[in-house]
Amino acid sequence: MQSTIRSFDLAHLAHVELLTPKPEASLRFFIDVMGMTESGRRGQSVYLRGWDDYERHTLKLTEARVAGMGHFAYRATSPEALEHRVGIIARSGRGKGWTEGDLGHGAAYAFTTPDGHNMEIYYETEWYKPPPELTPALKNQAQRFPARGVNVRRLDHMNLLTCEPAELRRFLEDVVGLRTTEKIVLDDGREAGGWVTTNNKSYDLAFTLDHYGAMGRFHHVTYALDSREEILRAADIFLEAGVPIETGPHKHAIQQTFFLYVYEPGGNRVEVANAGARLVLAPDWQPIVWTENERKKGQAWGLKTIESFHTHGTPPIEQYTGPRRK
Amino acid sequence: MQSTIRSFDLAHLAHVELLTPKPEASLRFFIDVMGMTESGRRGQSVYLRGWDDYERHTLKLTEARVAGMGHFAYRATSPEALEHRVGIIARSGRGKGWTEGDLGHGAAYAFTTPDGHNMEIYYETEWYKPPPELTPALKNQAQRFPARGVNVRRLDHMNLLTCEPAELRRFLEDVVGLRTTEKIVLDDGREAGGWVTTNNKSYDLAFTLDHYGAMGRFHHVTYALDSREEILRAADIFLEAGVPIETGPHKHAIQQTFFLYVYEPGGNRVEVANAGARLVLAPDWQPIVWTENERKKGQAWGLKTIESFHTHGTPPIEQYTGPRRK
Amino acid sequence: MQSTIRSFDLAHLAHVELLTPKPEASLRFFIDVMGMTESGRRGQSVYLRGWDDYERHTLKLTEARVAGMGHFAYRATSPEALEHRVGIIARSGRGKGWTEGDLGHGAAYAFTTPDGHNMEIYYETEWYKPPPELTPALKNQAQRFPARGVNVRRLDHMNLLTCEPAELRRFLEDVVGLRTTEKIVLDDGREAGGWVTTNNKSYDLAFTLDHYGAMGRFHHVTYALDSREEILRAADIFLEAGVPIETGPHKHAIQQTFFLYVYEPGGNRVEVANAGARLVLAPDWQPIVWTENERKKGQAWGLKTIESFHTHGTPPIEQYTGPRRK
Amino acid sequence: MQSTIRSFDLAHLAHVELLTPKPEASLRFFIDVMGMTESGRRGQSVYLRGWDDYERHTLKLTEARVAGMGHFAYRATSPEALEHRVGIIARSGRGKGWTEGDLGHGAAYAFTTPDGHNMEIYYETEWYKPPPELTPALKNQAQRFPARGVNVRRLDHMNLLTCEPAELRRFLEDVVGLRTTEKIVLDDGREAGGWVTTNNKSYDLAFTLDHYGAMGRFHHVTYALDSREEILRAADIFLEAGVPIETGPHKHAIQQTFFLYVYEPGGNRVEVANAGARLVLAPDWQPIVWTENERKKGQAWGLKTIESFHTHGTPPIEQYTGPRRK
Repeated sequence: MQSTIRSFDLAHLAHVELLTPKPEASLRFFIDVMGMTESGRRGQSVYLRGWDDYERHTLKLTEARVAGMGHFAYRATSPEALEHRVGIIARSGRGKGWTEGDLGHGAAYAFTTPDGHNMEIYYETEWYKPPPELTPALKNQAQRFPARGVNVRRLDHMNLLTCEPAELRRFLEDVVGLRTTEKIVLDDGREAGGWVTTNNKSYDLAFTLDHYGAMGRFHHVTYALDSREEILRAADIFLEAGVPIETGPHKHAIQQTFFLYVYEPGGNRVEVANAGARLVLAPDWQPIVWTENERKKGQAWGLKTIESFHTHGTPPIEQYTGPRRK
Repeated sequence: MQSTIRSFDLAHLAHVELLTPKPEASLRFFIDVMGMTESGRRGQSVYLRGWDDYERHTLKLTEARVAGMGHFAYRATSPEALEHRVGIIARSGRGKGWTEGDLGHGAAYAFTTPDGHNMEIYYETEWYKPPPELTPALKNQAQRFPARGVNVRRLDHMNLLTCEPAELRRFLEDVVGLRTTEKIVLDDGREAGGWVTTNNKSYDLAFTLDHYGAMGRFHHVTYALDSREEILRAADIFLEAGVPIETGPHKHAIQQTFFLYVYEPGGNRVEVANAGARLVLAPDWQPIVWTENERKKGQAWGLKTIESFHTHGTPPIEQYTGPRRK
Repeated sequence: MQSTIRSFDLAHLAHVELLTPKPEASLRFFIDVMGMTESGRRGQSVYLRGWDDYERHTLKLTEARVAGMGHFAYRATSPEALEHRVGIIARSGRGKGWTEGDLGHGAAYAFTTPDGHNMEIYYETEWYKPPPELTPALKNQAQRFPARGVNVRRLDHMNLLTCEPAELRRFLEDVVGLRTTEKIVLDDGREAGGWVTTNNKSYDLAFTLDHYGAMGRFHHVTYALDSREEILRAADIFLEAGVPIETGPHKHAIQQTFFLYVYEPGGNRVEVANAGARLVLAPDWQPIVWTENERKKGQAWGLKTIESFHTHGTPPIEQYTGPRRK
Repeated sequence: MQSTIRSFDLAHLAHVELLTPKPEASLRFFIDVMGMTESGRRGQSVYLRGWDDYERHTLKLTEARVAGMGHFAYRATSPEALEHRVGIIARSGRGKGWTEGDLGHGAAYAFTTPDGHNMEIYYETEWYKPPPELTPALKNQAQRFPARGVNVRRLDHMNLLTCEPAELRRFLEDVVGLRTTEKIVLDDGREAGGWVTTNNKSYDLAFTLDHYGAMGRFHHVTYALDSREEILRAADIFLEAGVPIETGPHKHAIQQTFFLYVYEPGGNRVEVANAGARLVLAPDWQPIVWTENERKKGQAWGLKTIESFHTHGTPPIEQYTGPRRK
C-alpha cells in the first residue's frame, strides 16, 4: 500500500517551460500550427494552452540563447499532499526551496533531478476562464475548440534525456512519488529508459539514455489528440507548414502510443500522440520490462527507430556545456 | 484532502453481472457481435472479457427468469483500503457481509445501494493469463486483439436507474467514496441524474431517475472502443447482425461521450462508447451542474433524447415486482 | 451501349451558385467555418473553392434578396461532347442559349430543368493556380490544406427540390445524359426522389419531392470530407461556431452517405459528407429502388428523418412566389 | 477527345489471379485475416471477394509451384466496347485469342503486355448473389459486412514489375486504352514507374522498374478500406496474426495513397490502402511527373522507401527463370 499512497501526493504533469532561441517563430508554431492559445505574457515568456487544459497554461515559452527545457512542474492533489511531498524531497537533499509562483499558479517548491533537470511542484492554481470569444458551447469543456492547425487537446507527457536512467527512475519513484509502468533493461542489466506516472494515464513522464552522456538534456514534450486519424492529419498539416517531421506517424511498441515527432523552430522536439482509451486502472500493475532484443524489433509495426531519436536533444549536443557521464 | 483520500480506497469499476432470460442468444451476442472472449463458466454463468481488460472477467452473464443486473463490483486499491472502506459501509447499515468471492476474484464485501442494487468490493483478483492462441504480439497488452465483431476494448462504465438520484449520489459519495463530476438538477431543486468516478476517468458509474419510480433497476453497461470511427463501424455491425439500435451514434452533451445504445437479446441495454482522451486530472474538479433547460436542448449536436431512454430498464417495468416511490 | 455513350458527354458537377440575403455572414461561414478559399470577386459575387477542387471555383456566392440557388453547372468531357450534348438539349426545347462564360470558365450553354432550375454546361475552364502561400507540399494536390475550420475537400453533389421527381429524372437521363443509381418509388407508383450521376461517384445530383408542390426550389449543396471522423469533428466545429445543425451526423440508408446538414447564415442548407471508397464501377449498374415501407425505417441506423428535411428549401416557402403543382 | 473515347472501352480492373505454393495458408490469410469471402472453387483455384465487390470474385487464388500473378483482367463497358478494344489489341500483335471464360465471367480475350504479364478483357459477368447468411441489411450493398479480420472492401488496384516502364506505359495507353495520371521520369529521361486508370479512380494499375531487369514479375495487389483508421487497425491485426509487414502504414507522395504492405503466406505482396475521397474527375488531367530528386525525399511524411520495395516481387528473383533486360 505504501507506493500507492506515496504516488497519490501528485495529481498530474502540469506544465513545461521550453527555451527557444527563435521566440517569434516558436510562438507562431505553437499558435498557428499546433492550434494552441496564448493565455498570458510576462518578461521574455509567453504562456500557452491546449483547448482542454484546465489550468491557465501548460506551456511556458521563454526566449533563451540556447534551446532546451527550462523547468517542468507537477500539480499536487491537495495542500497537505504538497506539504508531505515537499518534506520528502527536502530530505533527499535535492530541494532548492520555495518560489513565489508564476503567472497562473501559486507558490512552488523547486528541486532538481539527479541529472539536474529543474522540477517544481505546487498546488494553488488558476483555472482557465475563457474570454467570450473562446467560451465553449458545452460547459464541461475548458475552452472552445479552435479549429486551427493541429488543434492539440491537452498536455500529455514529456520525456527527459538522462545520463543514468536507473538513478533517475529511483529518484522519481522514491522521492517524487511516481510509479513505473514500463522500462527497458539491457542485457548487461543497465536500464535504458523508463515510463512513470502519477495517475491512470499509463505515463506522464518518460526518460531515456542520453547517448552522449550529457546531463539534464530534454527529449520532447507531447500534446494529446483524440484519435489516430487526427495524428495523421497533423502529419499532413506539418508537411504543408514546412515543419520538419523526424519520424512517424507510427505506433510505439512501448506504451503503444501512436506517435509523430517534429522539431519546433527553436529546435525542441515536439510530439503529438493519441492518448486513446488505454489507461492503467490496476492498482497493482507490475512494470513491463523490455529487453534489448525486443527493442531491436523496432516499433510496433516494424519501423526501425530513427538514429536521431537517440542523439537529438536540447540543448543540442554542440551547444551543451555541462558535464558528461559515460 | 478528506474527499480525495476517501475516494482513493477504490481503484475502478471491476465487473457487472447481467441476468438474461435468453442465455444462449446473449452469449452469442457478447462473443460474436461485441467481440468479447469467454474466460470461464460456473453454474448458470459464463464469464466474459474485453481484450484490454486485465482481470479475468468484467462481465458475468447469468441465466435468469427476468433480465436485469445481478450485481456489480469495484476493485479496491489495496487490502488496507478495502478494509477501510468496508468499515465505512458497514457503519452505514447497508452492508450484507463478506462473500467467499467468485471465479476470478477473492473475498468480496456485499452491500446494497439505497435503491437495492447489489454491489460488492474486493481486492484479491486473478490477472488474466491468455492461452497461446490469444497471447498478444505486444507484451503490454492483456490479450490478442480479436478482430471479430465490434472488438470492445474494456469495461468502461455502467448506469443505474434510481427512484431518488440525490439519495443515491450521497450514498455513493459519502459511503462508497466516489466523487461526482457532473449532475442534473431540475428547476425545483430535485436531482435527475449523476455521474461519479473513483479515478481519472470522468465517470465509471452513472445513475438517472426511473420515471416509473421503481427501485433498483438497471439502465446500461458500457464497453469502450478507441475511436469514434470504431463506434460508427459498430453501428454498421449491429445493423448487419440484426441487433436493435436504440439511439446513436451521437455525442452526449453531458460528459461528451460518443455513444451508441443497443439491446442485447436478453433485453438489457448495452452501450459502446469512445472513452477518448478526456480525463479528469484536476484534483479539485467541481461538479458540472446541468439545468432542466439545458437538458431540453438534447444531445451535443441537437439529437433529441429518445423517450425509451427514460423508461426502458431491466427488469422491464412489466416484469418489475418491487416497490415504487413516486 | 447507348446510355453509357450519352452519359459520357459530361464529366462532373462543376459548380453551384448560392444566393444569400446575408452576403457577409455567408462568406464568413464558407471561409472561416467550412475552410474554403476565396478565389475571385465580380459584381455581387464571391467565388470560393475547396482545397482539392481543381477548377478555380466550385461555389459562387451571390448577394440576393432571397436565398436560393442561382444556377448550377456541369463540365463536359471535351469540346465535341459539349457540342453533342448542347444539340440534344436544344432539341428538347429547354435551352436558353449560350452565355459568354463567367470568372473561371468559358462559354456555357444555359437551360432549365422542367422545374425551372437554372443549369449550364461548358468545357473551357481555368485550372486553379495557387498563390505561393497556398502552394501545396505535394504537387499532385490543387491547393495547400488550409487547416482551418471544417476543411472541406471538394464539391461532392447537390440536391434539388422538385414538384415532379419522375419528370425531372427523365429529363436528367434523356436530355442531360445522367444515369440513375438509386430512387424512391411510392406504393402508388409515384417517384419521390432520385440520385443520378455522370461518373463513378454513385451520385453527383439528387432530387426529392417538394412537399409544398413548389417548383425549382433548392435542397442542399454538399462538400466532401475524407473520413467519417472528419464529419464528426465538423459537428463539433459547427456547434462551437453557432451554426444551426439540422440533422446528423448519421448514415443514410440510400447511397450510404455519412451526412451532416446545417444552415448557412443566408438560409441555404449545406451538407458535409464522407465520399469514402464507395464508387459505382459497374457499367451495367441497375438502379436500386426503395419502397415507401423501406423509407419508413428511417436512416441506416434507425434515425427518423427530420420533418424539415421534407419542407425546408430555398427560397423558403414563405418567400416563394412561383407556381405550385400538387 | 481521342484518348477519352479510347479509354472508355474498359470500365475497371476486375480481378487478379495469384499463384501460391502454399494454397491452404494463403487461403486462410485471405479469409481469416483479410476478411474476404470464398465464392467458388474450380480445379486448383479458390475464388474470393471483398464485401463491396459486385462481381462474383475479384481474386482467384491458384495453387502453383512458384508464387506470382497468373493473370489479371479488366471488364469492358459494353459488348460493343469489348469488341472495339479487342480489335485494337489484336492489331497490336499481342493478342492470344478468346478464352471461354471462367467461373463468374464469360468469354475473355487474352493477351500479354510487352513484359509478358497475362491480361484479359471481358464483358459478360455474374453479379454476386449472397446466400441468406451473407445478405446485407441495406439493399445497395453487395454483401454483408463480415466483421472479421481486416474487412477489405473491394479490389482497388494492382502493381506490375516491368523491365521497361516507358514501353509498358505506351502499350497500356495506346493499345489497352488506359490513361496515365502520374509517372516517374529519371534525370536521364528514362521512366521508372507509372500509374494508369480507366475511370475516376486516380489509378487502378501501376508499374515500376524491376531492378533485376526481369520480365513479367508481379509487385502487389491492393484492396481498399474506407478510412486511414482502418489501415492502422489492419496493421494491428497483421501484427497479431504474425503476417510480415514490409512497410507502412504511411502516405505515398505519389497518388497520396495511405498504404500498408504485407506478404501473404505464398510470398506475394499484398497492400491495403485507403481509397478515400481522392478522384480524378477532370477529363483533361495532365500527368503529374515526379523527378529523381523528388523521389529521394521518400514518402509524403519523410519515410524512406524500403529497399525491398524495389527488389521483392513474385516470382522471387531466385526462382525466376525468364529473360532479363538490363
